[in-house]
Amino acid sequence: MPFAFRLLKTSSRSAARLGRIFTDHGPVETPVFMPVGIAWSVKALNPHQLEALGAQIVLGNTYHLYLRPGTELLKEAGGLHRFMHWNRPILTDSGGFQVWSLKKFRKIRPEGVEFSSHIDGSRHLFTPASVMKAQREIGADVIMAFDECTPYPSTHEEARKSLDLTLRWTAEAAEWVDKNPPIHGYDQALFGIVQGGTHIELRHEAIETLAALDLPGYALGGLSVGEPAETMYSVAGQCCRWMPEDKPRYVMGVGTPSNLLELVSRGVDMCDCVMPSRNARNGVVFTWEGKLSYKAAKHARELDRPLDEQCSCYTCRNFSRAYLRHLFNAEELLVHQLATIHNLHFYQDLMARTRAHLRDGDFEEWRDGLLARWDAKKG
Amino acid sequence: MPFAFRLLKTSSRSAARLGRIFTDHGPVETPVFMPVGIAWSVKALNPHQLEALGAQIVLGNTYHLYLRPGTELLKEAGGLHRFMHWNRPILTDSGGFQVWSLKKFRKIRPEGVEFSSHIDGSRHLFTPASVMKAQREIGADVIMAFDECTPYPSTHEEARKSLDLTLRWTAEAAEWVDKNPPIHGYDQALFGIVQGGTHIELRHEAIETLAALDLPGYALGGLSVGEPAETMYSVAGQCCRWMPEDKPRYVMGVGTPSNLLELVSRGVDMCDCVMPSRNARNGVVFTWEGKLSYKAAKHARELDRPLDEQCSCYTCRNFSRAYLRHLFNAEELLVHQLATIHNLHFYQDLMARTRAHLRDGDFEEWRDGLLARWDAKKG
Repeated sequence: MPFAFRLLKTSSRSAARLGRIFTDHGPVETPVFMPVGIAWSVKALNPHQLEALGAQIVLGNTYHLYLRPGTELLKEAGGLHRFMHWNRPILTDSGGFQVWSLKKFRKIRPEGVEFSSHIDGSRHLFTPASVMKAQREIGADVIMAFDECTPYPSTHEEARKSLDLTLRWTAEAAEWVDKNPPIHGYDQALFGIVQGGTHIELRHEAIETLAALDLPGYALGGLSVGEPAETMYSVAGQCCRWMPEDKPRYVMGVGTPSNLLELVSRGVDMCDCVMPSRNARNGVVFTWEGKLSYKAAKHARELDRPLDEQCSCYTCRNFSRAYLRHLFNAEELLVHQLATIHNLHFYQDLMARTRAHLRDGDFEEWRDGLLARWDAKKG
Repeated sequence: MPFAFRLLKTSSRSAARLGRIFTDHGPVETPVFMPVGIAWSVKALNPHQLEALGAQIVLGNTYHLYLRPGTELLKEAGGLHRFMHWNRPILTDSGGFQVWSLKKFRKIRPEGVEFSSHIDGSRHLFTPASVMKAQREIGADVIMAFDECTPYPSTHEEARKSLDLTLRWTAEAAEWVDKNPPIHGYDQALFGIVQGGTHIELRHEAIETLAALDLPGYALGGLSVGEPAETMYSVAGQCCRWMPEDKPRYVMGVGTPSNLLELVSRGVDMCDCVMPSRNARNGVVFTWEGKLSYKAAKHARELDRPLDEQCSCYTCRNFSRAYLRHLFNAEELLVHQLATIHNLHFYQDLMARTRAHLRDGDFEEWRDGLLARWDAKKG
C-alpha cells in the first residue's frame, strides 16, 4: 500500500506519540530507530541478522550511493532493496548533511551544491532535482528533499539565508517529484527538512512554509551539530508543537539512548544514528545499566557475564564480556559483528519497550527511572 | 565417547579413504577440512554461521591462544569450547609452525624453543611439556605434539637433526600426557607430527618411531612450505603407505581445492588451511568453475549472478557478484562475512561431495573432471 501514517495514541502526560507508518515494503511501528547503512550495508551485519534483531527500516546515504556504486547501477538492479537483499522499508537521506560535512570541498550556489568526491576528488553538482532523481533510482520508501544543514552557532542572518535556500530547494524537489513518478513500481514518500538552526522563529516559519506543501512527512535537520542537549530538546519540543499532527516527525542523526527518550517525549516519531554501530566497533556498548566499555581490562575475567544481563540478543545469549574483550584486543573481525548485534538490538529493544509503555500508559515513569539510572552512571 | 577412528572404506582405485572420527564433542566424517580460527574466532564468522555452513571441527592456534588471552584464562573458562561458544570438536596445533615462522625471534634449544612474542616482545619458552600443558588448559579434542618444522629446502643432515628433535619431543609429550590427564572432563587425543622434509627415508624412520608410540593419530608436518606441489603429493602419498591404516592421517596447513583432492586420493583424512578465509577477505573466492576474483571490474554489472551458480550458501542464495564487488570496493565490513561464508561453505561442500563419491565408488572420475576443469581455468 502507498505511504501513510496513522497516529494511534498521544500520551496524556507528555507529547510522546504511538503510531504506524505504512509503506509498500511493509509497516513501521513508531517511535522507531533506524540503523544506518553507509554504502550499502550496516557494516558488519547481513540483512538476515538485521531482521533478526528487529530492525523495521534502515537508512541509506544518498551521497555515498551516488558516488559508489552509482545510482545508475541501482536503477539497473531494480533498486537498493534488491541490490542489498533487504525487503523491509528503506529511507534515504538527502545528501545535504554529507556535502555540508565536506566543508572545504564544496561550494554552495543558488541552484545547488558543487562538491568534490571524498573518494577521487571528481567534481559533482547536487541540485534539488538531481538528488530526487538519484533517490528515484535508489528506490527508498522514504526520500528526503535536498537541504542545506545550518551550522551551530550561526547568526540570525546566516540561518535566514541558509533556510531560504532549503525552502526554495524543497519546493523544487516537491515539484520534480510530482512530475517524475517512481520507476521501481512502488510508492516513495517525500519528506521535507526543517532548518533554521536554534532561531526558533525561523524554525516556525520553515514549518509553516513546508506544511503548505502538504508533504507526507517532515524532518528536523541541523540538530546534534554541536548545540547543548537542552537546546536540542527545546528546539525539537517547540517544533513538534508546530508540526502537523497527522504526519510523521523525524529527527535526523540523533543520538544516545537518553536523547531518544527525550525526543520521543517531545513528540518525535523517527530517529537514526550511526552511534550504536560505530560505538560497538570502538569498544563501547549500551546496556540497561548504562554505557559499558567492554574493552576495559576489568572485564578480562568476566567469563560468565554477558554484556547486558537483561538483554536477549544473540551476543548476550552466547558470549561473555571476557570473550568480547579478548576479540577486541586480538583485533578479531568477529567483535564488530557481535558488538554491533548487541547495540542495534539494544536500540530496537529500547524503542519496542517505549512503544509498549506508551500503549500501557506508563511511558513517563518508565522513562524517568531509566534516565535517572543512566544519569547516575553517566551512561 | 573417547576419541576413536573407524575406517569405513578404502577406494579400490586410489588410496582415498572414507572414515569417521568420534570425540566427546561429537563425530567428524572424513575426509574433512577444518577451518582455522586464529585467536579465537574464524575471523568474520560467528559459531552459529560456522555450524550452518557445515563445519564439523575447527582448528585453534596454540601459539596465539597461549599469548592472548592466555591458557590460564581458558582453563578458568572451562576450555575453549565454552569460551567461544562452539560445541563441536576442536583441534589445536602444536605452536611449532608459528614459532618456526618467527625465524629471527626464536632460538632452538635441546629442551624446546625460546621465542619473543610478536605482540609485545616478551620472552617465552615452549617445551614438549609446556605445550601439552597449554593444550590441556585450552581443552581441544585433538592436541598436537610439539615439533620443529623442517624448512624447504634442507640438507639431509639438517633434516636429520631437526627430525631427531621432533621425535624426542614427541616421546616427551606422550609421556607428559600419560601422566597428566585432561582437566575439563573429556578426552583429548594426542597426535604426533611426522617431519623429515623431502627426505623420504627420514619420513619413513619418523613414521616407524612414532607408530611405536601408538598415538591416536598422526600428522604430516613441513609440507606446503615452498616445495613443488608434485613433491608434496609424492611425499604425502609415500608416507600414507607407511602410516598406520587404523589411525587418522592429517596434513597440516594445506591447501587449495586441487591440493585437497590430490591429498585425499593419496590416503589423507584431515586438512586445514587459512586459505579459504584469507582469500575471501582479499577478494578471491573458489567456485565449482575455478577461482574467481570477485573484486574485478568485469563483475560490476553482474546483478543477477551469484559468486557460484552451483552453490547453495547464504551468500550465493541472496547476493550478486555486483553487490559483493561493491562492498569490497567500498571497504564495507560485510564483504568479509559474505565472502568467507561462501569460501568455507565451498570447502565443506567439496569434502561432503568427496565423501559421497567415495561412498558411491565414483570418486576418481568425479575428481578427474574437476581437476581438468580447474586446471584449464588455472583455478
